[in-house]
Amino acid sequence: MANRVQALQKTFGKDKLDGYLVADETDISYFTGFLGAYRLLIPANGEGVLYVYSVNYDAAKNMVKNCSIELLQRGEDADKRLANTARKLRLKSIGFDSIEFSIYSKLKRVLKGTKLTSASQSVWDLRKVKDASEIACIRRAALLTDVAAKTAAEVIKPDMREYEVAAEVEYAMRKLGSEGTGFSTIVASGPRSAFSHGGCTSKKIKRGELIQFDVGARYQNYVADLTRTFLIGKPSPKQMRIYEIVKEAQERAFEKIRDGVKAKQVDTAARALIKKHGFGENFPHGLGHGVGLAVHEPPALNTVSKDILKAGNVVTDEPGIYILGYGGVRIEDTVLVKKNGAERLTKAPYPMTVS
Amino acid sequence: MANRVQALQKTFGKDKLDGYLVADETDISYFTGFLGAYRLLIPANGEGVLYVYSVNYDAAKNMVKNCSIELLQRGEDADKRLANTARKLRLKSIGFDSIEFSIYSKLKRVLKGTKLTSASQSVWDLRKVKDASEIACIRRAALLTDVAAKTAAEVIKPDMREYEVAAEVEYAMRKLGSEGTGFSTIVASGPRSAFSHGGCTSKKIKRGELIQFDVGARYQNYVADLTRTFLIGKPSPKQMRIYEIVKEAQERAFEKIRDGVKAKQVDTAARALIKKHGFGENFPHGLGHGVGLAVHEPPALNTVSKDILKAGNVVTDEPGIYILGYGGVRIEDTVLVKKNGAERLTKAPYPMTVS
Repeated sequence: MANRVQALQKTFGKDKLDGYLVADETDISYFTGFLGAYRLLIPANGEGVLYVYSVNYDAAKNMVKNCSIELLQRGEDADKRLANTARKLRLKSIGFDSIEFSIYSKLKRVLKGTKLTSASQSVWDLRKVKDASEIACIRRAALLTDVAAKTAAEVIKPDMREYEVAAEVEYAMRKLGSEGTGFSTIVASGPRSAFSHGGCTSKKIKRGELIQFDVGARYQNYVADLTRTFLIGKPSPKQMRIYEIVKEAQERAFEKIRDGVKAKQVDTAARALIKKHGFGENFPHGLGHGVGLAVHEPPALNTVSKDILKAGNVVTDEPGIYILGYGGVRIEDTVLVKKNGAERLTKAPYPMTVS
Repeated sequence: MANRVQALQKTFGKDKLDGYLVADETDISYFTGFLGAYRLLIPANGEGVLYVYSVNYDAAKNMVKNCSIELLQRGEDADKRLANTARKLRLKSIGFDSIEFSIYSKLKRVLKGTKLTSASQSVWDLRKVKDASEIACIRRAALLTDVAAKTAAEVIKPDMREYEVAAEVEYAMRKLGSEGTGFSTIVASGPRSAFSHGGCTSKKIKRGELIQFDVGARYQNYVADLTRTFLIGKPSPKQMRIYEIVKEAQERAFEKIRDGVKAKQVDTAARALIKKHGFGENFPHGLGHGVGLAVHEPPALNTVSKDILKAGNVVTDEPGIYILGYGGVRIEDTVLVKKNGAERLTKAPYPMTVS
């Protein structure tokens, strides 16, 4: 964690900062390993100061090794306390990641004379490129997610409710050590599979319906993300055709992924194929997104992305075709960007027919 | 949902607003029933305008009945689009709930001449007081949470890992229709139970250790929140004593809860008893918090709260005593504030000894 703080400190020069206020809880956990602190103030040199309310103070003291920790009293004006430290450290130009407007206004008041600059990009530039320990966590989350996918393929039966499928797959992951789920599991069947984020209801799954299944495990706060589309029985020729187009689009995009390629071009590889088959209008979302401590984070893989992929990025590859009133197919894997190519971290098979 | 929009419109006068920009996704779902929109703009009269990116547009069209829905194109400047609508509607003074600083700055630029005011309190004043349909959802979530508590009491056995307990209880809730969990389940045993938010690890649970068990189901996006503290075998006199103090403190606070009482006084009722027994320093958090679409929301029940409880508030009552290196006890229920008293929505029994 200490090297992450140092990496952030190295970015201060370009923004003319002499300090950085980390306000987002997940960002704080990235730099400290601890979820549950209020703020982290990082000066240009030396270690950060972590502000923690009494409810989590003992836990923070137990876990955090690379910062000094200050106890916030309930009812204390935490921002004033922060401002005092900033003055003591003679910080004149502080960057920050993400602060709600009314809190910014207050900080601005108590930090008169200090420049406050939105500089979230600096943290994202670090978070986007995963180090070995982060990749190990996502790998483990992906393995647990594969278990979920295989479980879904095994348990889905006619007349099972969507949330009953979710119960079985989440249980299978959890028993093996997943920390709950990385996001709300989607089991969307029949016409509901035409919604990209259809959630999970009490609807019974019928033979012949497309079933969109989107799940992710969480391990040491890192997430994986996978979608498979299933069907009980024999697919119709139309269902089969859509499935095969999406599958091929996913593979075309995968083949493009490597260090140095424009994220937009990866999106194009999948989108062009889907368009060629006449389903351009039925692919209403980007091809993918970064995955890490958050399930949706930079880089973005879509038609307007300016990101260039870098080795160490972990991204999703998830084209889809959705037909309103009919159903949809999406196939998604979590993919590690490497120097000379890419590796699927989720490796579950792609059976269309189950049960 | 339409009456919630109207209730917000009625607050415009006091802040001299002629429009309101709802930016927080959960707030948007409160007014529309839909999770997954980008912004909701509410003018002083008539229905709101909901902005949705293409990924969720079809789903929004299918679900949202009380707003007009506008499709945002990927790559489009959504804030400019919003600003155009605001100008068309001649909005000169717009309140908002919660906007990140850099987005505020941009809105300020594109909405030159329009006053933007942070007015989150107006939405919280509504969300804090639950209507009948919301209480029904929380009641159902509480029922599912009770199942989880009873399951925990049944399944906990010596040498079981903390996350294995979580797997069993989450499965039990999920099978009956819980939408995943309302928050990360806590199963913190032994010295780890001394942390108020100790999470859930691969640690094996040993006979005689205090086990802090904190869980909540989710139903139609509404959450419940419950903590029980368990122990395998026979408690020591000290464990028993702490347990009984916390249990009595929880009851004392519960007896105070009713419409019109100061939230701070409810905290005091529990805290005074814990102090009297010499554990004042070991209760490092507030007595409780509001529960609804978010697991932590207003009103706050703590030593510095200015809230006055109102019938329709749903709050937690959760005193605790935590001894570093030794362990902790917390007992928590989700409670509905009524005109002449209160009702526990979570009703699971309080067995100290399990297995």
